[in-house]
Amino acid sequence: MSRFLSDQYTTLEAYVPGEQPRDQQYIKLNTNENAFPPHPAVIRAAEEAAGSLHLYPDPECRELREALAERMGISPDELLMTNGSDEILNFAFMAFCDKHIPAVFPDISYGFYSVYAEINQVPYREIPLREDLTIRIEDYFHAAGTIFIANPNAPTGIALRRKEIEKILQANPYNAVVIDEAYVDFGGESCVPLIREYDNLLVTQTFSKFRSLAGGRLGYGAGNPELIRDLNKMKYSTNPYTINRMTMAAGIACVKNDEYNLENARTIMETREWTRQELEKNGFEVTPSRTNFLFARHPKVSGEKLYLELKARGILIRHFNAERIRDYNRITIGTREQMEALVREAGKVVSGS
Amino acid sequence: MSRFLSDQYTTLEAYVPGEQPRDQQYIKLNTNENAFPPHPAVIRAAEEAAGSLHLYPDPECRELREALAERMGISPDELLMTNGSDEILNFAFMAFCDKHIPAVFPDISYGFYSVYAEINQVPYREIPLREDLTIRIEDYFHAAGTIFIANPNAPTGIALRRKEIEKILQANPYNAVVIDEAYVDFGGESCVPLIREYDNLLVTQTFSKFRSLAGGRLGYGAGNPELIRDLNKMKYSTNPYTINRMTMAAGIACVKNDEYNLENARTIMETREWTRQELEKNGFEVTPSRTNFLFARHPKVSGEKLYLELKARGILIRHFNAERIRDYNRITIGTREQMEALVREAGKVVSGS
Repeated sequence: MSRFLSDQYTTLEAYVPGEQPRDQQYIKLNTNENAFPPHPAVIRAAEEAAGSLHLYPDPECRELREALAERMGISPDELLMTNGSDEILNFAFMAFCDKHIPAVFPDISYGFYSVYAEINQVPYREIPLREDLTIRIEDYFHAAGTIFIANPNAPTGIALRRKEIEKILQANPYNAVVIDEAYVDFGGESCVPLIREYDNLLVTQTFSKFRSLAGGRLGYGAGNPELIRDLNKMKYSTNPYTINRMTMAAGIACVKNDEYNLENARTIMETREWTRQELEKNGFEVTPSRTNFLFARHPKVSGEKLYLELKARGILIRHFNAERIRDYNRITIGTREQMEALVREAGKVVSGS
Repeated sequence: MSRFLSDQYTTLEAYVPGEQPRDQQYIKLNTNENAFPPHPAVIRAAEEAAGSLHLYPDPECRELREALAERMGISPDELLMTNGSDEILNFAFMAFCDKHIPAVFPDISYGFYSVYAEINQVPYREIPLREDLTIRIEDYFHAAGTIFIANPNAPTGIALRRKEIEKILQANPYNAVVIDEAYVDFGGESCVPLIREYDNLLVTQTFSKFRSLAGGRLGYGAGNPELIRDLNKMKYSTNPYTINRMTMAAGIACVKNDEYNLENARTIMETREWTRQELEKNGFEVTPSRTNFLFARHPKVSGEKLYLELKARGILIRHFNAERIRDYNRITIGTREQMEALVREAGKVVSGS
């Protein structure tokens, strides 16, 4: 820490991303990347855009918003494109929370929510999940704060139904409700169809998972145009050009090839169910996932031990040290071959061989 | 504005980027883009990186920092890579300013500084330039706040010598001093050689100008490792992955082909001097620029009129409405052909033909 850092941040603990090791080649099942590379048209689009890199990108992302809005059946002015969904989540904390408007989110969820609250000097309230790691929706009625719910939730993988989210929206007419749908395309129900009915709803999504574009940094928010205008104010007051030309072109090509992405998602969901069954055969308890990952624990092997032993065997999964979930690990669904290796090695760890 | 926007931002006025018109092809001299496309190796590097877009980028940008640090003769831990220099400037306002530490900058400078102050709820003090638009360095001695100076300054184009900046550093041992060197490679003197001597110095630079990468979004800060750690805390508390894989690869290729960038910069500086002389022949007053733009006014034609008439003739330049500089326009140095068109059409406007 330098002697110039503002006092307000001296105790701030930043977010810790999943490991990106350089020391050896792992089977990398720790950051929920898509098992499949982007469509070849995406690569061609990015390459073509690279020829104009001396020119600024369009900060309004008009073409991309038009393509995506058409695909989603909404209007471009109901969309804001951002550098990953992390950027729009931070904007939502900036715009819709303050000293007097706390943030409200589950105690077990995306670990960045509390960091966004801290960096923005926003008080926050964490609502415990039930013992079975599900969200009790009544806990979010009349929340007196801005609600952030990842749906499906991470790292549990468990999803609420759209009808349940709708009850939360109805019970919070004076609060904004942010539904973080990073993983919705692997079996969840999106709330985007509700944005015209509920002016308090912001839905955030990402190209990092379903659209195989984690390396491109592209996310967005969908909501009524007034919410979007507020979030644009944050964008134009911090960094208006965060989406580069190549990613913008890649994003358009992604959207136009969504059949490919849908096919990959179907494969990933099949592999997920196969992996879940195999892990259960080995005694693991696995939550019902609607994402591209599983959240699993074993009654006889600690979460940390499984994580470390798999790492020693060349397989990276994600372990969290938070009290309520330290028995678990989060395991990304990779290719069938990768998951066969995971199942085999995890089986060896729990059987002690 | 939605009814959910925090009261603290209801009066915030966001930054307004230079126009990016879609309606026709302009000779675009309004956003200080480099006149030359990036080196072909940059395009190849970006294309190759696009094949791995399903994987997250390295949030630490290790390879890129290593390549850039080697080129700059500093250590990788003295560097933080960001999404354009806008991102690191915002981080500097977040980390080194607060309610009790105001921001201090010239009244005529990069228009974003006051927006960063507003969005971060930081008080700020603008110090008037002299009548001739130069900075009086003594005004920044014992500033009792964090100093932000663009050097060369924008939109004036006028540079301070490194020795002058050093006096400001020496007279502010208890304050951080941020030198924004977006345009330094077109004839200015960089303060990077001072970062080991002055622990209160942060230098920010960008790949957008000299390295022809405005469309890729890449900037960085150089300073002592403790300052860099503080700024990394801001990065890992807002959005750790803002630099995508393609830009990261492109950035490395840029640095490795700096001879090409240097050659382009020499051409731009020659074209700048030619343009300046031609404009002066037509009666324009032009500030002594050390950047890839000129700042010019004409005693007989208002700044707004020149801007509008050139726009009607298919040439975009940048006009600012701020009181002290509304007689001026900022004109990017494009190719020789573009500048011949500018000189010809500007000549017609001022002669009334």
